[in-house]
Amino acid sequence: MSRPPGRKQENHKISRELLVLTYGALVAQLCKDYERDEDVNTCLDRMGYGIGVRLIDDFLARSAVKRCRSYSETTDMIAQVAFKMYLGVTPTVNCSTAAENEFSLILDKNPLVDFVEELPAERASLCYCNLLCGVIRGALEMVHLAAEVTFLQDKLKGDAVTEIGITFLRKSEDRKHKR
Amino acid sequence: MSRPPGRKQENHKISRELLVLTYGALVAQLCKDYERDEDVNTCLDRMGYGIGVRLIDDFLARSAVKRCRSYSETTDMIAQVAFKMYLGVTPTVNCSTAAENEFSLILDKNPLVDFVEELPAERASLCYCNLLCGVIRGALEMVHLAAEVTFLQDKLKGDAVTEIGITFLRKSEDRKHKR
Repeated sequence: MSRPPGRKQENHKISRELLVLTYGALVAQLCKDYERDEDVNTCLDRMGYGIGVRLIDDFLARSAVKRCRSYSETTDMIAQVAFKMYLGVTPTVNCSTAAENEFSLILDKNPLVDFVEELPAERASLCYCNLLCGVIRGALEMVHLAAEVTFLQDKLKGDAVTEIGITFLRKSEDRKHKR
Repeated sequence: MSRPPGRKQENHKISRELLVLTYGALVAQLCKDYERDEDVNTCLDRMGYGIGVRLIDDFLARSAVKRCRSYSETTDMIAQVAFKMYLGVTPTVNCSTAAENEFSLILDKNPLVDFVEELPAERASLCYCNLLCGVIRGALEMVHLAAEVTFLQDKLKGDAVTEIGITFLRKSEDRKHKR
């Protein structure tokens, strides 16, 4: 492998395999800790939320993106900049024709499951990548956007693609409903 | 890092912050699960071992390194190629003057603790990054090198640098001792 000439400062770019395997270890540990898939899913979502809340600063600093002016622009930013930056893939954005606040990210390839063959039969309801939903939700909340984020389809469960749904909640009234 | 010319397939390079925060979530979960720091350390080492065993194939494929002919060469490879690839840093290699099979990796900066300020007082014996020791041990074992890998110094515990010691075990007799 060739190395760059001269003294290079620190490089934040890494190969993602250590992330993928570390994530696998985390999910495996939670599966040991919780018998019910729902509890693992909730825990992953909650952990992801905590990560999103912290990751957003890094994202804004590193991407130097401008303020988004619409839900659509925000979703494009998540797909094209954030997913690219932290997972090395760019999902396709799908907009609901019926509702202006509903979008989804379609992943032909989900790198987080690179080392996973299939879910064990007794873990059929596990949302293996649920951390991602929490990360998105947490990061959005830090830029004052409340959203529901859930897996709509999952290749690990036999679907053709992996699809993450994002429903932006309209300010005060929706939030009240949620609480 | 330069990439081979021609059509660029998928990009495996990512920013490492998601790894760092995911790792933090894993350690936090283990601290919930186990009261004793020693148990968390053992668990991290064991998980790391499992990761190293799987990561080695990716490493050999991606790095296209040649067979190492000495412990010293192997240690250099871990520092200059593997750490660079998966953590984005290059530790300095230190060789013991007394023993031919003892080396250490010195990290001026440990990216895995980027978001950690300090260990809580009740977790003073936690080897926060112990997963790395397991990863190195597991990967080495897959290329038929038995080794003991442990933290010798840790900035998180107030040391000036973070230092990971690698002691290569001499074939059969040392292995017998270990079992």
